[in-house]
Amino acid sequence: MIQVKPQLYHVLGAKQFGRSELDELFDAAREMEDVVRAGGNRSHQGRIMTTLFFEASTRTRLSFESAMTRLGGNVIGTENAAQFSSAIKGETLEDTIRIVGGYSDIIVMRHTDIGAAKRAAAVAAVPVINAGDGAGEHPTQALLDAYTIQKEIGRIDGVKIAMVGDLAYGRTVHSLSYILANYQDVMIYYISPENVRIPASVKQYMDEKGIRYEETTDLHAVAGSIDVLYQTRIQKERFPSVEEYEKASGQYIVDEELLTHMRKESIVLHPLPRAGEIAEAVDDDPRAAYFRQAQNGLYIRMALVDKSLRGVGL
Amino acid sequence: MIQVKPQLYHVLGAKQFGRSELDELFDAAREMEDVVRAGGNRSHQGRIMTTLFFEASTRTRLSFESAMTRLGGNVIGTENAAQFSSAIKGETLEDTIRIVGGYSDIIVMRHTDIGAAKRAAAVAAVPVINAGDGAGEHPTQALLDAYTIQKEIGRIDGVKIAMVGDLAYGRTVHSLSYILANYQDVMIYYISPENVRIPASVKQYMDEKGIRYEETTDLHAVAGSIDVLYQTRIQKERFPSVEEYEKASGQYIVDEELLTHMRKESIVLHPLPRAGEIAEAVDDDPRAAYFRQAQNGLYIRMALVDKSLRGVGL
Amino acid sequence: MIQVKPQLYHVLGAKQFGRSELDELFDAAREMEDVVRAGGNRSHQGRIMTTLFFEASTRTRLSFESAMTRLGGNVIGTENAAQFSSAIKGETLEDTIRIVGGYSDIIVMRHTDIGAAKRAAAVAAVPVINAGDGAGEHPTQALLDAYTIQKEIGRIDGVKIAMVGDLAYGRTVHSLSYILANYQDVMIYYISPENVRIPASVKQYMDEKGIRYEETTDLHAVAGSIDVLYQTRIQKERFPSVEEYEKASGQYIVDEELLTHMRKESIVLHPLPRAGEIAEAVDDDPRAAYFRQAQNGLYIRMALVDKSLRGVGL
Repeated sequence: MIQVKPQLYHVLGAKQFGRSELDELFDAAREMEDVVRAGGNRSHQGRIMTTLFFEASTRTRLSFESAMTRLGGNVIGTENAAQFSSAIKGETLEDTIRIVGGYSDIIVMRHTDIGAAKRAAAVAAVPVINAGDGAGEHPTQALLDAYTIQKEIGRIDGVKIAMVGDLAYGRTVHSLSYILANYQDVMIYYISPENVRIPASVKQYMDEKGIRYEETTDLHAVAGSIDVLYQTRIQKERFPSVEEYEKASGQYIVDEELLTHMRKESIVLHPLPRAGEIAEAVDDDPRAAYFRQAQNGLYIRMALVDKSLRGVGL
Repeated sequence: MIQVKPQLYHVLGAKQFGRSELDELFDAAREMEDVVRAGGNRSHQGRIMTTLFFEASTRTRLSFESAMTRLGGNVIGTENAAQFSSAIKGETLEDTIRIVGGYSDIIVMRHTDIGAAKRAAAVAAVPVINAGDGAGEHPTQALLDAYTIQKEIGRIDGVKIAMVGDLAYGRTVHSLSYILANYQDVMIYYISPENVRIPASVKQYMDEKGIRYEETTDLHAVAGSIDVLYQTRIQKERFPSVEEYEKASGQYIVDEELLTHMRKESIVLHPLPRAGEIAEAVDDDPRAAYFRQAQNGLYIRMALVDKSLRGVGL
Repeated sequence: MIQVKPQLYHVLGAKQFGRSELDELFDAAREMEDVVRAGGNRSHQGRIMTTLFFEASTRTRLSFESAMTRLGGNVIGTENAAQFSSAIKGETLEDTIRIVGGYSDIIVMRHTDIGAAKRAAAVAAVPVINAGDGAGEHPTQALLDAYTIQKEIGRIDGVKIAMVGDLAYGRTVHSLSYILANYQDVMIYYISPENVRIPASVKQYMDEKGIRYEETTDLHAVAGSIDVLYQTRIQKERFPSVEEYEKASGQYIVDEELLTHMRKESIVLHPLPRAGEIAEAVDDDPRAAYFRQAQNGLYIRMALVDKSLRGVGL
């Protein structure tokens, strides 16, 4: 058997992060901004990242590959693990991870099944970073979201945030809620159509952590009092008919009109890609922070990869 | 918003190149031949190229990736952007470019839509190199074609060239014509079946630049007087029937018999891949320059990538 | 024409290896274990490997890419050459290899056609390593198999090995037989269902080399006397009905019960991926050597790539 090292630093879910670890991570991400401005460094020269994407996500994959490269490391991988790998010959995820772990120093993995990253970490000889496991978690997205709030607003404690869109199936919203539960006096407005409301499990977690939240269907009513509008996509296939989808999604479009109701110091975030739910006219407003947010993904992922690789030793 | 730097050096179309820039580029390509012979250099160590291929083109992609690697840089990318990227979730090309530009130092892009590279460059934070945009342009191919002529014939001024095949849809022929328009006393024979003649827009451009050309359907009539035979593929689907296709394409096959009519100092070029339009028996003739031409693509792309990256600064 | 260098060191088939070369290779692989433990080296910095996979094989591709990276080199390539390359435009394999050879220093290639690697090597300007050519050969798998036997058992001379499963179509079994033919006093038990017995051509080769072997359908009868159980997959589609497949494959499952009959110092190997033919309960037995075997693939491939690249010169 290839030996599993229990002390490895895996990134599997948002709930694993406590406040002090978040503070450290965001400090590290801030330093990574300097590293990128300086043209990268060679701190992980010779190290290998494997990107195993059983589900396509070009943007997320490229940001991890960029992160590894900016740290001087190398990347091997597949952008279509489901179709091309031994998986189609009936190999278990565990066997794949056991073997690929022997070819590299860190595995970044996207999978269609909830819990896949945890199963991988249980048998891996190297650290595993969860880049999304089905309807489960997408912890690095939540971390970059929180980092963006801290950078743009100056703090996360006391922040008022509206999460908008498909809150039932949008895993980024769940993961971000778990991260925000580490902070003081946060207020969350969960704003969605009735049929895609935030799950009870998330609300229960927030209750346990003493985080205030409200559920509503009315974005305009809260737009004027929030620091952060976190917009997400609403998927057609969740609705019984196109008419109901259009009626529902139409209420939540962020456009120039909505911006006039929002505070000057507020920001608009979006995990991207967007379809029509943020109008392009919003892009030129200084409050449109979603492209800066995407850029922050690079710094957060550099910080996480760096920490995981330092944990491995040589 | 991510800031677009207007001073970036993009490579978007053949018409952007003037004579002095071509002279400089070809000098730089010649130096890159020495760099490759020496095993590459480290002049762009730590820099990242993203290859975004919305349409497959393994050969072109590999030549750009090799170019970046020979210069000491790194590559991330996708060989199937259309199927795997956020594009299928409705993301605009502009959003994709805004984000990917934050992960890398240069973008090389192939797309199915005319003008896609220009749209990308309009929002990119980094230089964009057009590796083919649909029926539009393929400027790096035209540059390597011209570089090959200069290397093989010793000059481009005064050269007599026959462009053969599908001149209506073959974008390499259009782009090469625009490049040749920078030189003195060039004579172009456009040789094609009647239904895929060179477009009026290309002829008008050549007229404006004072370049001599003739249109004909008869390759044998000019074979003896040219310096360069630029062969291209003729695609079946342009013709009303298989019979008409075979009749048309059969006239333009370059074989040993045709070579007997050509001058000793002349060369045969082809953008490749070839199907049957150049017989394999021709490969051993010293005038068969198409594999050397493909190799020149590496040097030209190294020179272009180097220039673009130097323009970025750090 | 691009010049083909006849003195290149290609890896095309198992029969090309003699005893002294195997001894050297295994010594080199052993040294590569130290290189990996030390975090890799930079001995081939700046060199480029092209991985051309006309058929998907993520595991094999990643192990070659890891090998090149551990040696300080870089990788370009395609994981889906058949669908994306110029092949679909009618280009011959030979043309592809001529051009790609100009972009890189070594080509690793998987193809669906028997003999494809030899055809590639015949026109390549750089070394070619066969990573599997259809029902033909998979020499690097056979080499890592033999290396594993030597490491685990301490010798290959005198070893008793049972090859189990689909011996008709399993190319790894054929290639491994050819490698073992270089050693003294080897005894091979070919154990398979009647309809997928070892081919006459393999038996003839073993006869010529004076290697002892027996054919049988009964795994349990020999389990107690062997040093190595080399298990392989049995594919459903080789059998006239699902019932016959299940009856046949059921006899050859390696499970805890079978292990009780095996010697303490014996090992179980498998080229992987496995489906159900080795029970997961076996994984924890120290005789389960198949994951160590997969890891050895990295060292063998590093040794082969290193040797091929040293043969090129600069």
